[in-house]
Amino acid sequence: MTAHKELTIGLFGFGVVGEGLYKVLEKTPSLKAQIKKVCIKHPDKKRQAPASLFTTDKDELLHDPCINVIVEVIDDADAAFRIVSTALKNGKNVVSASKKMIAEHLPELLNLQQQTGQSFLYEAAACASIPVIRNLEEYYDNDLLHSIKAIVNGSTNFILTKMFEEGLDFKQALILAQQLGFAESNPKLDVEGYDAVNKWTFLLTHAYGIIEKPEDILFTGIQSVNAGDATVAKEKNQQIKLVAQARKLHNGKVAAFVLPQFVNHDDHLAFVKNEYNGVVIESGFADKQFFYGKGAGSFPTASAVLSDISALRYDYRYEYKKLYHHHPLVLSNDVYLRTYISFDDWSFVPRNDFEWIEEWHAGEERKYLVGVIAFEKLQKDSWWKENNISLVLAADAIIESIELRSLKKKSLELAGIV
Amino acid sequence: MTAHKELTIGLFGFGVVGEGLYKVLEKTPSLKAQIKKVCIKHPDKKRQAPASLFTTDKDELLHDPCINVIVEVIDDADAAFRIVSTALKNGKNVVSASKKMIAEHLPELLNLQQQTGQSFLYEAAACASIPVIRNLEEYYDNDLLHSIKAIVNGSTNFILTKMFEEGLDFKQALILAQQLGFAESNPKLDVEGYDAVNKWTFLLTHAYGIIEKPEDILFTGIQSVNAGDATVAKEKNQQIKLVAQARKLHNGKVAAFVLPQFVNHDDHLAFVKNEYNGVVIESGFADKQFFYGKGAGSFPTASAVLSDISALRYDYRYEYKKLYHHHPLVLSNDVYLRTYISFDDWSFVPRNDFEWIEEWHAGEERKYLVGVIAFEKLQKDSWWKENNISLVLAADAIIESIELRSLKKKSLELAGIV
Repeated sequence: MTAHKELTIGLFGFGVVGEGLYKVLEKTPSLKAQIKKVCIKHPDKKRQAPASLFTTDKDELLHDPCINVIVEVIDDADAAFRIVSTALKNGKNVVSASKKMIAEHLPELLNLQQQTGQSFLYEAAACASIPVIRNLEEYYDNDLLHSIKAIVNGSTNFILTKMFEEGLDFKQALILAQQLGFAESNPKLDVEGYDAVNKWTFLLTHAYGIIEKPEDILFTGIQSVNAGDATVAKEKNQQIKLVAQARKLHNGKVAAFVLPQFVNHDDHLAFVKNEYNGVVIESGFADKQFFYGKGAGSFPTASAVLSDISALRYDYRYEYKKLYHHHPLVLSNDVYLRTYISFDDWSFVPRNDFEWIEEWHAGEERKYLVGVIAFEKLQKDSWWKENNISLVLAADAIIESIELRSLKKKSLELAGIV
Repeated sequence: MTAHKELTIGLFGFGVVGEGLYKVLEKTPSLKAQIKKVCIKHPDKKRQAPASLFTTDKDELLHDPCINVIVEVIDDADAAFRIVSTALKNGKNVVSASKKMIAEHLPELLNLQQQTGQSFLYEAAACASIPVIRNLEEYYDNDLLHSIKAIVNGSTNFILTKMFEEGLDFKQALILAQQLGFAESNPKLDVEGYDAVNKWTFLLTHAYGIIEKPEDILFTGIQSVNAGDATVAKEKNQQIKLVAQARKLHNGKVAAFVLPQFVNHDDHLAFVKNEYNGVVIESGFADKQFFYGKGAGSFPTASAVLSDISALRYDYRYEYKKLYHHHPLVLSNDVYLRTYISFDDWSFVPRNDFEWIEEWHAGEERKYLVGVIAFEKLQKDSWWKENNISLVLAADAIIESIELRSLKKKSLELAGIV
């Protein structure tokens, strides 16, 4: 109908995502987007495309004036940043899927977009087939976005599902995930929460205008969640999920973290099983929305890249409204968390750090307590990540400081202590 | 960041949606979208906005050269069509929420968009807060979109939820829906499926390039679903939902309809309760996606309108790719449906019309059978909409003609008939 921009693409990376994208673009002339050149690392590998398409010289793409879009789907975060920044400076629009690179270089990437006026799109970097970034871009007023919580890492969700539904222990579940290709052979990035907090870093920018380094966001993974915790969860008719969460507080700031959580069976996130991802957005306006889909894998990722390419045809770009058009929000430490802590040995748990303890169970082998603790203390200390201690957020986990006193009173009354 | 187009809006309608939109735009200067004039029907009604904003003369909006966007959120489908077509002809972009108008005038509206080159966006007309149209627009290749099924009418879903979860009968549930404002005082449009099939009409265009009149799509509502059917569903650990469905067949055409269906407890749509809507898209590329949110109501609708207005700032328009860039698909009658039929009196059920009957139960009061019948017969005949007969699609409802013979053999063997 309309005369859309014709796109000539320089592609970095020809792994499963890159090759999938190449095939789809070949079959989709209506998109008017053609890959002119593909930059690869290993020229000797056999590939399902004409040899003339490939080069190992990145400048053949980055300095080709005919190429107006760079698509980058490589594994190396440092190389990716060099490619993306050069491409933007050379007047090219860029589509990327490198969550780690984006999380680590967010301020520079924001500056580059402003300086160059080019589009930099990365829907594929978080939740792949779920259009979460574009959805967050639609929210105009900070006040309207009450909260967002999400399962953004498929590997850990797969492992937890197998622990819950098939009674596997953590190690068995991890091996199964690796066998099925849902976890890296070095699974630390997924399992210990690095991948999730990387994604959360830039999703917080789109949601609230927050700019933080990944390491400054409170996070852990599921490395300490054990079969005993799964049993406790089942008794309560709950599951444990690794949840990335953010909520606007009464103090005008935002509480945000990535932590394992007990999730009630009727919670939207309980619906998200195996390698799937899910996002729940609560806003004053659109009310509660839930998005669910595959968060990784060659095709879901290529599909998100394709949708970014398609958006470039009408010069779509992220507006980062919460950052540029509003007073951007910042993270708050002034909040308390209701936590379940399981452990072998009382002596490693600093009981006095808790505002109050609501529940405790001492079994032969494993003990646990449920108590309320200052966010700041968790962020400062690391006892809860050591000594075979497992921390899982309990129901109604976020307690604002203004509620603390009345909740404490109620809780101690219930326990018969006051 | 970029200099987006400034939008000057002429708004038709100042009911809950129109007023909500007005308030949000006032509070959101960053959107650079201002309502210049609002056209209303009843000038004497008290309204929460300056009197100078209002007029009863539609030409004050439609012929104002400063107004570049017309937003239309009125109830009268005929008036809406006159407004929309005049606005497009006068060189204005248009945002609309009138599903009935769009369904009934789809071919004219498509022509008008091509002739005028203007954008006509209507995300609010189906599933409100769920960005279903924009999502369907992302699918480039017909082959990739295997199927789409959705709950697109919140009123009927609310009624069915109450019948299942609180054991209300149909009439009680309808009265409750009306009391809570989820159903019109004349609920025929919702209850008998007209609203759902209207939405399905243009969703089929975005999904498959199909252009059909609503009355040519096989549909019914939930008017005949009764407490006995709910009991049968519960025995099978299923629910009944009014589902709009479409699936690409091996013959290259599409089977599509809006009918009550048994939905398994682990189906994504079983998750969609009360007044919510949900959409499940299966594609070769993004795999299975599920979108869930409020499908009606002032705020969710205004939120969808807002997102369309926002998209106009970068000249976004629907591409109708399946229609213009591919060979558009057509509906197929060459398919069979596995149906559950409940009834009082055998004599109204044309047993010989069924390819085979898999199950039948004859209770004192109510009887039912499960059988496979040609789609065409349901479309041609109306016995199943009369005589207190209730039709609900059974599990694995869609049977392609190429599978028919082998499935029949298997089924009759299972029944011990052959």
